[in-house]
Amino acid sequence: MKLRELAAKIDAKPLSDADIEIKGVGGIDSVQEGYLTFIVSKKLIPQLGASAAVAVIVKEPITEIDIPQIAAENPLLAFARALEVFYVQPHRPEGVMSGAAVADSVRLGRDVTVYPMSLLAEGVIVGDRTVVYPGVFVGKGSSIGKDCIIHPNVTIREGVTIGSRVIIHSGTVIGSDGFGYVFSDGRHHKIPQVGGVIVGDEVEIGASVTIDRATTGNTMIGEGTKIDNLVQIGHNVSIGKHCIIVAQVGIGGSTDIGNYVTLAGQVGIADHVQIEDECIVGAKSGVVGRLQKGVYSGIPVMPHFRWLKVRALYERLPELQKKIREIEKKVGSSEKGGRDD
Amino acid sequence: MKLRELAAKIDAKPLSDADIEIKGVGGIDSVQEGYLTFIVSKKLIPQLGASAAVAVIVKEPITEIDIPQIAAENPLLAFARALEVFYVQPHRPEGVMSGAAVADSVRLGRDVTVYPMSLLAEGVIVGDRTVVYPGVFVGKGSSIGKDCIIHPNVTIREGVTIGSRVIIHSGTVIGSDGFGYVFSDGRHHKIPQVGGVIVGDEVEIGASVTIDRATTGNTMIGEGTKIDNLVQIGHNVSIGKHCIIVAQVGIGGSTDIGNYVTLAGQVGIADHVQIEDECIVGAKSGVVGRLQKGVYSGIPVMPHFRWLKVRALYERLPELQKKIREIEKKVGSSEKGGRDD
Amino acid sequence: MKLRELAAKIDAKPLSDADIEIKGVGGIDSVQEGYLTFIVSKKLIPQLGASAAVAVIVKEPITEIDIPQIAAENPLLAFARALEVFYVQPHRPEGVMSGAAVADSVRLGRDVTVYPMSLLAEGVIVGDRTVVYPGVFVGKGSSIGKDCIIHPNVTIREGVTIGSRVIIHSGTVIGSDGFGYVFSDGRHHKIPQVGGVIVGDEVEIGASVTIDRATTGNTMIGEGTKIDNLVQIGHNVSIGKHCIIVAQVGIGGSTDIGNYVTLAGQVGIADHVQIEDECIVGAKSGVVGRLQKGVYSGIPVMPHFRWLKVRALYERLPELQKKIREIEKKVGSSEKGGRDD
Repeated sequence: MKLRELAAKIDAKPLSDADIEIKGVGGIDSVQEGYLTFIVSKKLIPQLGASAAVAVIVKEPITEIDIPQIAAENPLLAFARALEVFYVQPHRPEGVMSGAAVADSVRLGRDVTVYPMSLLAEGVIVGDRTVVYPGVFVGKGSSIGKDCIIHPNVTIREGVTIGSRVIIHSGTVIGSDGFGYVFSDGRHHKIPQVGGVIVGDEVEIGASVTIDRATTGNTMIGEGTKIDNLVQIGHNVSIGKHCIIVAQVGIGGSTDIGNYVTLAGQVGIADHVQIEDECIVGAKSGVVGRLQKGVYSGIPVMPHFRWLKVRALYERLPELQKKIREIEKKVGSSEKGGRDD
Repeated sequence: MKLRELAAKIDAKPLSDADIEIKGVGGIDSVQEGYLTFIVSKKLIPQLGASAAVAVIVKEPITEIDIPQIAAENPLLAFARALEVFYVQPHRPEGVMSGAAVADSVRLGRDVTVYPMSLLAEGVIVGDRTVVYPGVFVGKGSSIGKDCIIHPNVTIREGVTIGSRVIIHSGTVIGSDGFGYVFSDGRHHKIPQVGGVIVGDEVEIGASVTIDRATTGNTMIGEGTKIDNLVQIGHNVSIGKHCIIVAQVGIGGSTDIGNYVTLAGQVGIADHVQIEDECIVGAKSGVVGRLQKGVYSGIPVMPHFRWLKVRALYERLPELQKKIREIEKKVGSSEKGGRDD
Repeated sequence: MKLRELAAKIDAKPLSDADIEIKGVGGIDSVQEGYLTFIVSKKLIPQLGASAAVAVIVKEPITEIDIPQIAAENPLLAFARALEVFYVQPHRPEGVMSGAAVADSVRLGRDVTVYPMSLLAEGVIVGDRTVVYPGVFVGKGSSIGKDCIIHPNVTIREGVTIGSRVIIHSGTVIGSDGFGYVFSDGRHHKIPQVGGVIVGDEVEIGASVTIDRATTGNTMIGEGTKIDNLVQIGHNVSIGKHCIIVAQVGIGGSTDIGNYVTLAGQVGIADHVQIEDECIVGAKSGVVGRLQKGVYSGIPVMPHFRWLKVRALYERLPELQKKIREIEKKVGSSEKGGRDD
């Protein structure tokens, strides 16, 4: 494909001759001969020069670059579109393939594909063009919207509602029982988990994620929220729209998370927490109580800027102790037993 | 169902007229028209009043409530039973369904169900009324007791023994090889993992849990223990009875955990740790060595009440440093190089 | 098997009479009547004496032991070999079994086994003697080398290359999409993940591990690296040779890890981190930036020996505060509002 043609498809503007042939698209670490790449920082100009790239997406013209440039308001977005143009092919619908098990009462939209080894139970609804890969289980009465991709070995239990344009990666479980017991007579009695899960449109859920069904009512994942791998979402959790939940985050039961919230990797959120819109929680932090809009870190969290100071002093505790001892020597110390080391 | 009738089934006592019709049962956040709910705190009376509940389970009569009340010693337990009465239907046994693969030497109890896409290998034993959902693998010689529910896409490797009334959620793996190697000649040589796993009666294991088989001997999960999602249990671990292991906990090899122990979310336990009966470990804590009965927090853990103090001072390190500087100014500081910021 | 015969097979040297019959092999905690075991510490002599062991592997002769001893340079390695001799049987090849789905264009080596409920898509290559257990999905054009074991319910997406003598445990997902989005116009736009994953020879990957495919290029796992359960490896990560990655570690995108690196349990590594050869990172630590060869702990990490000191002082913050107050009393405090508790 000519650079000019590709630029047109991704809303980028050629800044020079654009007749060069583009053979592929890659990030700057994986450029091959004839590739288009992108840069968002001038620091990468030397690496770009040393690479086999023949063209580059930039935000504004950069005079130090001697290969053809195309300009886009958001170079990363243009790069994403270029990847799509070059590599993403529409799935050819195959219908219900031999070896799939689809109950009689299942309602399938147009151009659905259900691969072998998958099972759709009674009353399941699947929207147009959705692809269900092998080894998927969809329980009674659950529904999946249009244009979804359900990757291999996903489990969607009964009574789950999935929106449209949702992607669910392999090994993920939606609708497992919430972790709820009553302790009585020396044992934990199970509280039946009879609620459901509702997943909004354009949600993407990573691999081996677990999303528990509600005790009663529904666990909710809002439109456009993106969830990374190995995340745990407890029963009756409500997550708003367009959140980013990074890998291995755990969210306790009945927690309520607003819109545009970012939870970095391995964050833990207790039960019954409230996190307001646009909060950002740093990696490995622990959250209890209620968070107002802001950036937070620590176990449990404090405002991120305070955490930066605290964390720096924490690392310097040996020096702080030394200082205290010096002062102590000067003022003389009469008390006994006051050793601090 | 009339309130009177439902109250009788859940051992609750009507405190007033109980002829009202109950249409469903729900937690106070998910009450719908005609529902029975429960409260355990007077703080929730306003929310109850604003809800569509037509009856409520309480511990003792509450005069401020103007809808019919029924009293139970443990309202949450009564609520759990009410959910069961209303929503939990017995599974209708289906036998070995077409599309399941069951080896000739498998011994099935009465009224077992094995769904399509599941495979039971040679010598497997399955007890009466147990349900094996689709996509389950049970390896050679493993046994599952009576009245178990094995949810879709569970893997039970060879040589695993599962008790009765056990529930295993989707994606969980029982009997994967322990993580054991000997380093020699610049590489890690695998130590064959030839032991098994024994899971006691009434254990519930969440989704995407991993329980490794023992190197030799058995990894053990005691009766009545409840394990949440995404928990890792290493080889040769022994967990006692009626423990609560919350999501994303990791337990290292050969660790020994007593009875009635609670491990909160994302706790990490090292190898060869010993945790005595009734210990409670706070979320995100790390445990090494040996814990006597008590409540612990921190990385590594200390007694919880100490941790509360320490954690409060930690957050106030900037103020502590300021104070030290003030003192220093007063006493005069002659040493050089003693900067602490 | 006679002890003499077993000793010969595991390169150990009988230190006395070796005509005794060995009935099994077990770790000291799981010895049964007639078993061979091993010890690497004299502390275990009493436990050995109390056990039913009839012979023991040692490094050098121990006079206090009164059962037959055999000596090996590395007793644990000899024990591992003894387990193999006693318990590990070669897999009898079964070919493509009825109920497996193998596309026409798949190329299978000699003596491959593909169990029922597994699906190999177009263009897949499987090497000699590799065993694919039930419920496995292998996507278009992926290849698996010789002598691999792919346990039940593993997902290997398209465009993944697996070396030889690789073991992949159940529930693991290789080649799920990397977690990459561009934020624009109030929503997160997916960056297509069109790269692959390359796994070297003799890698072992635990249960329910997730390894994301690269955005472009490849996510790489080097030869001989061993990965425990529930580990998350982000897109474009490169891990070197012979590393040990313990359970529940999370590694962010584009991070570069050298050879012989050890990451203990629940460690979190941010995006774009560089970790040099032979680094060791303690359990639950968090890594940002770049680590030179050394041992590290903390969130974020500092050198381990410093962390030990800091951690000890951290726990003694209440005593440090008390000391400061005592000093303060002595020097007299005139400022107002300087409360620190």
